Amino acid sequence: MSELQSKLAEFRQLVAKIKSYEEAIGLIYWDMRTGAPKKGLASRSEVVGQLSGESFKLSVSPQMGELLAYFPENGREDELDTINRRVVRETRKEYERSVKIPPDKYQAYVVLTSQAESAWEECKHTSDYAKFQPYLEKIVAANLEFIDLWGYEGTKYNTLLDMYEPGMTVEKLDQVFGALRDKLVPLVSAIASSRNAPATSFLRQRFDIEKQKKFSLFILGQMGYDFEAGRLDETVHPFATGLNPGDVRITTRYLPEDVVSALFGTIHEGGHALYEQNISSDLIGTNLCTGTSMGIHESQSRFWENMVGRSREFWNRYYGELQRTFPGQLDQVHVEDFYRGINEVKPSLIRIEADELTYNLHIMIRYEIEKALFSESVKVADLPEFWNSKYKEYLGVEPSNDGEGVLQDVHWSGGSFGYFPSYALGNMYAAQIRHTMRQKLPQFDELAEQGNLIPIKKWLTDEIYQYGKLLTPNEIITQISGEELNPDYLVAYLEDKYKEIYKL
Amino acid sequence: MSELQSKLAEFRQLVAKIKSYEEAIGLIYWDMRTGAPKKGLASRSEVVGQLSGESFKLSVSPQMGELLAYFPENGREDELDTINRRVVRETRKEYERSVKIPPDKYQAYVVLTSQAESAWEECKHTSDYAKFQPYLEKIVAANLEFIDLWGYEGTKYNTLLDMYEPGMTVEKLDQVFGALRDKLVPLVSAIASSRNAPATSFLRQRFDIEKQKKFSLFILGQMGYDFEAGRLDETVHPFATGLNPGDVRITTRYLPEDVVSALFGTIHEGGHALYEQNISSDLIGTNLCTGTSMGIHESQSRFWENMVGRSREFWNRYYGELQRTFPGQLDQVHVEDFYRGINEVKPSLIRIEADELTYNLHIMIRYEIEKALFSESVKVADLPEFWNSKYKEYLGVEPSNDGEGVLQDVHWSGGSFGYFPSYALGNMYAAQIRHTMRQKLPQFDELAEQGNLIPIKKWLTDEIYQYGKLLTPNEIITQISGEELNPDYLVAYLEDKYKEIYKL
Repeated sequence: MSELQSKLAEFRQLVAKIKSYEEAIGLIYWDMRTGAPKKGLASRSEVVGQLSGESFKLSVSPQMGELLAYFPENGREDELDTINRRVVRETRKEYERSVKIPPDKYQAYVVLTSQAESAWEECKHTSDYAKFQPYLEKIVAANLEFIDLWGYEGTKYNTLLDMYEPGMTVEKLDQVFGALRDKLVPLVSAIASSRNAPATSFLRQRFDIEKQKKFSLFILGQMGYDFEAGRLDETVHPFATGLNPGDVRITTRYLPEDVVSALFGTIHEGGHALYEQNISSDLIGTNLCTGTSMGIHESQSRFWENMVGRSREFWNRYYGELQRTFPGQLDQVHVEDFYRGINEVKPSLIRIEADELTYNLHIMIRYEIEKALFSESVKVADLPEFWNSKYKEYLGVEPSNDGEGVLQDVHWSGGSFGYFPSYALGNMYAAQIRHTMRQKLPQFDELAEQGNLIPIKKWLTDEIYQYGKLLTPNEIITQISGEELNPDYLVAYLEDKYKEIYKL
Repeated sequence: MSELQSKLAEFRQLVAKIKSYEEAIGLIYWDMRTGAPKKGLASRSEVVGQLSGESFKLSVSPQMGELLAYFPENGREDELDTINRRVVRETRKEYERSVKIPPDKYQAYVVLTSQAESAWEECKHTSDYAKFQPYLEKIVAANLEFIDLWGYEGTKYNTLLDMYEPGMTVEKLDQVFGALRDKLVPLVSAIASSRNAPATSFLRQRFDIEKQKKFSLFILGQMGYDFEAGRLDETVHPFATGLNPGDVRITTRYLPEDVVSALFGTIHEGGHALYEQNISSDLIGTNLCTGTSMGIHESQSRFWENMVGRSREFWNRYYGELQRTFPGQLDQVHVEDFYRGINEVKPSLIRIEADELTYNLHIMIRYEIEKALFSESVKVADLPEFWNSKYKEYLGVEPSNDGEGVLQDVHWSGGSFGYFPSYALGNMYAAQIRHTMRQKLPQFDELAEQGNLIPIKKWLTDEIYQYGKLLTPNEIITQISGEELNPDYLVAYLEDKYKEIYKL
């Protein structure tokens, strides 16, 4: 074995070891959220702390530093194959992010965000922004300090964006979000004053939960979700977690008086899961064995939820099944009315309840706030006013208190800045992917209409899923569509769809 | 902080770290057995290997060796409080067991037993002892070699017994098993020729699984099982696993045509769980935070299953509930007939299906084989003959092939020698504990008859559960009953119970 080969073997073993810890921690979190007995949680948290600590120690160990130094950016790295080169690059990126923060500062930050999350729970409930404000101020200050340590290009906020969407910048986001906002705000406004709002009352009957579950499982199977490589459970807040490609679990939440909420939640998480289940086995045991970015990941959940699951073609195929699942409950509702009902657009205050169209505007408001915070052009104290005026401007609604306003999301209390844009990026990526797919897989609409979803899954596997993190988000979207992220596809898709539904 | 205090803190942290790994591994095994997707298992095994390896490395690390040397057996250890003294003692015992086996030999043994377990599965199925024999020969030889490295007192087999039942010896077992056998063989024989066998056909109707589940959960609650510190799932082979006292999970298996199988399985595992749920919180994060021995653990599962769950008093209280749970199915069956039916004694070939009485004889046969193997007075090749003649002698039945004979149990293929006696020890401990409990808690029978099981649980918590591994099995039984293990209590209990049922 050459020195290079033996260093590489040592390096890959170290990377796999870290990945093993992450898999164990992932399983523990899944268990905590799906049914771990509450009296065992204190001890379980110690276990998580222990495993995270060991994993972190390995990732910044002298051994790791030496191995990374052995594979310099522009030297012997060329002797490595593509996968190993990317594993080295990704590991280096994580290493440099971690070693630049002094351990005591990081430890203090972990404590701060943990306290802030508890405080947020309470302050949201009591709509008490003043009480939450000092936590948020400290978290923003800590992040600004970290950015100085990490370094940044252009503006400070870019460093945060890059953590969730590698390569994404304020410059690019300003452009795509600007284009999107200019088209969507008038469209939402036109819809709000349209006289052709769809009826929706039939969606809110009492629907047996066991039958909802059966139908959700049926649709998951139709999408090609592999039940031998995953399972569906119930939680208050649905999520997907990829422990390894052979074990990608999802959860959903059944509402007794809503026929579609659990279903669309299941399809959404199912989209995330298809991604993780179909990553190439060559990447197992490396840090490339996951989705390439939050935005591309979200593009898959939203593609399946909205562009497949909320399409007319899909329901032309599956509506009969749904009617038969709930005998007598939807017999009088025509498929066209059902389609329009599940695509109702309604400007509202709460992001997680927003429809496909207005959702993007909720995200842009958060983006503008984060951008202003990290360019230090707005004070934490002024966020409620900023928030409320933006809601009025973009969505025509105004919160009556901060609990349903600026305090509604958990993200900031945990220090997740730069994450929100992923949701809207996901919609844009999804529309751009859909556009290409309809050209290259011309029978796309027919496939949905026939309930033949497997070729769609296969196309996405070939173009996206198999690569995991081997390609960057920009490489993925360019390879698929021949161009970088372009908001026009989402605008065209939304205008086509909603102008027709609302007869505008 | 004194040097002693700081060494102690370092030591306890190391012990807690090992315990954390064990908790994580325990959860992974629980998940593997209750519903982990099968395609993820290969990767999950790597994770288990990784965590076990880290834990083992810590347990035999130079740091551990130095700390243990700091607390010598007869020196500064006296400055420690009881708990710390016992933690040191237990850790030293584990350390010495581990360091004495050369790593390559241990590694080879792990591979051997893993191959042997696979071979056993197949050989049991095809009744092919000849094919399994070489594996068993190697496993026995490896254990003999290990015993030479570990050292032994009296006979070699003692070292194996001590791993499951600290302090237990062949001398003691010969005495108690001999006394037991002398009484039970004639009793079983008398029962086999009795004309008063109870009717049992009413137990084998179709019993709705959901209702069985509901009734099992009800009984678990009555026993004082804490559902906020555990959960009940389904598996083919029921088990209990204590991850920490706040998270003790059990499983059961519902048979559609048997009203009591799942119930008694649940009570059995529930007994194990009560033990683990009620260990003192002072012991959390130490290696004392578990049952003191396999025998004492089994005494609790069997006490609850047989001495409570199969008692007349218990059913005087709960039979009405059972009848109401399955309307129309047991209405014609009198509680007395039900009581006799669930206590049927029937000499049989298969240990895990044996009744409370004959079970002990199945164990003694295995004990005599293990003892002979490790005194090298019988060859592995001769085990089938040995087995069959003992079954004829003790139980009056003979296997028609080795699959239902010597190959029936998984234990030996995994290298678990010395474990089997625990099951019969459990019965003896349970009877001895019951005897004392009826004196010190004179209303014991009434409590069961009233369905007031909590004082029973409390008494067991005070006398046994809280101590975890802080006391040895011998200390526990002596502290409770004023004498060492004595087989007469089990003999008296079984004779009283079964002579009455069979009208002998």
